[in-house]
Amino acid sequence: MEGASGIESALETAVASCDALGCPPRLAAAIRYAVFPGGARIRPRLCLAIAAGCGEPESPLAIATAASIELLHCASLVHDDLPCFDDAEVRRNRPSVHRAFDERIALLVGDALIVLAFQNVARAFAQSPDRLPNLVLALTRAVGAPGGIVAGQAWECEDSTPLEEYRRQKTGALFIAATVGGALSAGADPTPWRVLGETLGEAYQIADDIRDALATDEELGKPAGRDADLGRPTALAELGVQGAVKHFESLIARAAASIPECPGAEFLRELVDLEAQRLLPASLLQRAA
Amino acid sequence: MEGASGIESALETAVASCDALGCPPRLAAAIRYAVFPGGARIRPRLCLAIAAGCGEPESPLAIATAASIELLHCASLVHDDLPCFDDAEVRRNRPSVHRAFDERIALLVGDALIVLAFQNVARAFAQSPDRLPNLVLALTRAVGAPGGIVAGQAWECEDSTPLEEYRRQKTGALFIAATVGGALSAGADPTPWRVLGETLGEAYQIADDIRDALATDEELGKPAGRDADLGRPTALAELGVQGAVKHFESLIARAAASIPECPGAEFLRELVDLEAQRLLPASLLQRAA
Repeated sequence: MEGASGIESALETAVASCDALGCPPRLAAAIRYAVFPGGARIRPRLCLAIAAGCGEPESPLAIATAASIELLHCASLVHDDLPCFDDAEVRRNRPSVHRAFDERIALLVGDALIVLAFQNVARAFAQSPDRLPNLVLALTRAVGAPGGIVAGQAWECEDSTPLEEYRRQKTGALFIAATVGGALSAGADPTPWRVLGETLGEAYQIADDIRDALATDEELGKPAGRDADLGRPTALAELGVQGAVKHFESLIARAAASIPECPGAEFLRELVDLEAQRLLPASLLQRAA
Repeated sequence: MEGASGIESALETAVASCDALGCPPRLAAAIRYAVFPGGARIRPRLCLAIAAGCGEPESPLAIATAASIELLHCASLVHDDLPCFDDAEVRRNRPSVHRAFDERIALLVGDALIVLAFQNVARAFAQSPDRLPNLVLALTRAVGAPGGIVAGQAWECEDSTPLEEYRRQKTGALFIAATVGGALSAGADPTPWRVLGETLGEAYQIADDIRDALATDEELGKPAGRDADLGRPTALAELGVQGAVKHFESLIARAAASIPECPGAEFLRELVDLEAQRLLPASLLQRAA
């Protein structure tokens, strides 16, 4: 997808607004550490691509929305990695935030990033306030309760977990926010964009499961095979590698087919195909053969 | 101050929106537990009083703003109580959230309440979007970095703590959001209301220090004398009880004097005095004599 440099610079501006006079230095450093360098930035790139598809490429509103979605994603990674949940030592090829700093700072970094995400869109939409209420609603639905990331994560604290709901909340919801938020930032009707977010989110989750089983630690930026080690329910455990890859391909086809008629429809369909190749490169799939 | 029933019912509506289909049941129960029954609800009552002072009593926008401020306050209590910070066993006369549920749920409850606070104002301001950007900015400044609650809390992770900054961020900032947010919700200029929030926040902090030293566990709803046990820097340690009470009284006088000319000015000055008596009742002060 597109707009990578715009996203990085929007994230830099947002982080710099925290890393300012009065901020305790370790917190400031840890906020920056949690956001840079990033991963694939797939959610914000998706958001920007939809805004462009809706006729507003490179719009400051879309870029701010994209950056806020990424800040919310980073917040969820920092809190998921904490000792009481995954106790992850490594993230993006280096120590997780609570390992590099400490648990207290990691707790506060997650909180600060959630708050920053809403501050960032509020600032950007000051001149287009009509678009702000629905945008904030879309973001909050994606990360809060009852249907967002926090709810998804809380299923890990129950005796039994409804798998589909768990995945939809923990992964799908923020992908939906990326497509819906992209449309809303462009002043477009978000409804036709939900399915694209939903199917891409599910495809991403399956690709993640497949990569966890087939890729190396270094390729992943964290220990591979962790799902199997933790006995997590994954698409692989259900379908096997070949079945999971087939399911991934059918989701990508559905995602591409769901793209509504709009100025950038053709361009978006190509992007979905490119993204699919990036998620599951042929070189990786050969290992499954 | 006023509007207590409106605040409780707005909090109930907000919490019920989490406690909905799809929410993991333990998370839903813990969110409710963190918000009800509440403490004095001093911040949301202050917010409502300012909106009334600005000519919009009982406005749904003010009530929503007040409820969101209380949700942010509850979130900060839940995260501050966690084992990595205060490891508080008791809050509001019963087990803290992580004791009643567990640490993972308490982490997620704090996250969910922060998100809910922004969702709640976004929903309420859908028909008055012009007022939303500045309101969200005021709320986020009060709770995030570099100058809000999260930053204040992060000073506890540094080798040395600038006391005034620490208190202003950890306590003062949300009081400022209460007065500024009350004015913004009413479409009024927030600038003249900052000093009232600042001075009341400082007075509240000092009253809290005095109560911690003089009140019983039951009156406080948590163990008394905790500041001294933890060797925390307080107004008492600096000024002694009599000096702290004097400082409290001078802050209350400054707060009352700061109230700008507005339809409800006289009423607000009376409320500040009543609140001062509630914060430090004569019966408590007799113990210091």
